[in-house]
Amino acid sequence: MNFKKYIRDINDFPKKGIVYKDISPLLGNSEAMKAAADALVENIKDQKIDKVVGIESRGFFMATLLAERLGAGFVPIRKPGKLPYKTFTESYDLEYGTDQLEIHQDAILPGERVILHDDVLATGGTAEAAVKLIKKLGGELIESNFLIELEFLKGREKIKTSPVQSLMKF
Amino acid sequence: MNFKKYIRDINDFPKKGIVYKDISPLLGNSEAMKAAADALVENIKDQKIDKVVGIESRGFFMATLLAERLGAGFVPIRKPGKLPYKTFTESYDLEYGTDQLEIHQDAILPGERVILHDDVLATGGTAEAAVKLIKKLGGELIESNFLIELEFLKGREKIKTSPVQSLMKF
Repeated sequence: MNFKKYIRDINDFPKKGIVYKDISPLLGNSEAMKAAADALVENIKDQKIDKVVGIESRGFFMATLLAERLGAGFVPIRKPGKLPYKTFTESYDLEYGTDQLEIHQDAILPGERVILHDDVLATGGTAEAAVKLIKKLGGELIESNFLIELEFLKGREKIKTSPVQSLMKF
Repeated sequence: MNFKKYIRDINDFPKKGIVYKDISPLLGNSEAMKAAADALVENIKDQKIDKVVGIESRGFFMATLLAERLGAGFVPIRKPGKLPYKTFTESYDLEYGTDQLEIHQDAILPGERVILHDDVLATGGTAEAAVKLIKKLGGELIESNFLIELEFLKGREKIKTSPVQSLMKF
């Protein structure tokens, strides 16, 4: 399937000069959404996977679909203050300042095999923080995967200690 | 399946005196997550459904699983400023002040048959705003469903012009 035809370019979002890749048309089409989830698990579907981790918020869309296909549980990584139980926190750099991500301390057991998912791999800052949280819990990161990779931002460099897969490269 | 055993009570979250129903254990268990999604579509699975709408953020977890089961597309309703394309906006009351929800103007076509999903039905304020957004786009709301209904808050009253289903009542 040509997934790129389900991606809509939005000029100047979230700010002037940025061309935003809108995945809404893909999510809104049941065949495209299903095919995207199938494609993301294609090379890992025969492996034992315990948890699929999705990053807030757009990583949540596909992460549960991947978890179900892999027979795994789903774990959310969220912005600070959103998770109700005991958490670990990692900081990451933004263009100006820093932000943080959190994970429940009991979300992954030591030795569990984990897939990390987000919608877009851009600079890799959030993905790198997520990888650190997974490893802090003792999870074994099998793959990080993304619907979209913005290759010119070189985010892959930050997380390439384990395999990285993206469905669409721009 | 006894779904309630996968719900964890968190005292004093997000503030003192509130007992928060944490769905993380349910999401983290692949069998429980699958069974919950199956149960939520049980009485609608033979109907033609075009779109499943999930409310940010925790409504996203299960909404794509429901959409896939129903052969429907997925539509996110989000907090202001998050959706990149043209949106419609609805306000709703909080304990102090108001908040807003947005939907893409082209997310639902007139006459499309829609399921609304969120994790928890509490006071019904966000669900009511979401119902208004669906109807503003001309969608036909077939059912609103929730993992959890906090019955003492009577949120069902605000959205009962179409069927309301919840998997667990507290």
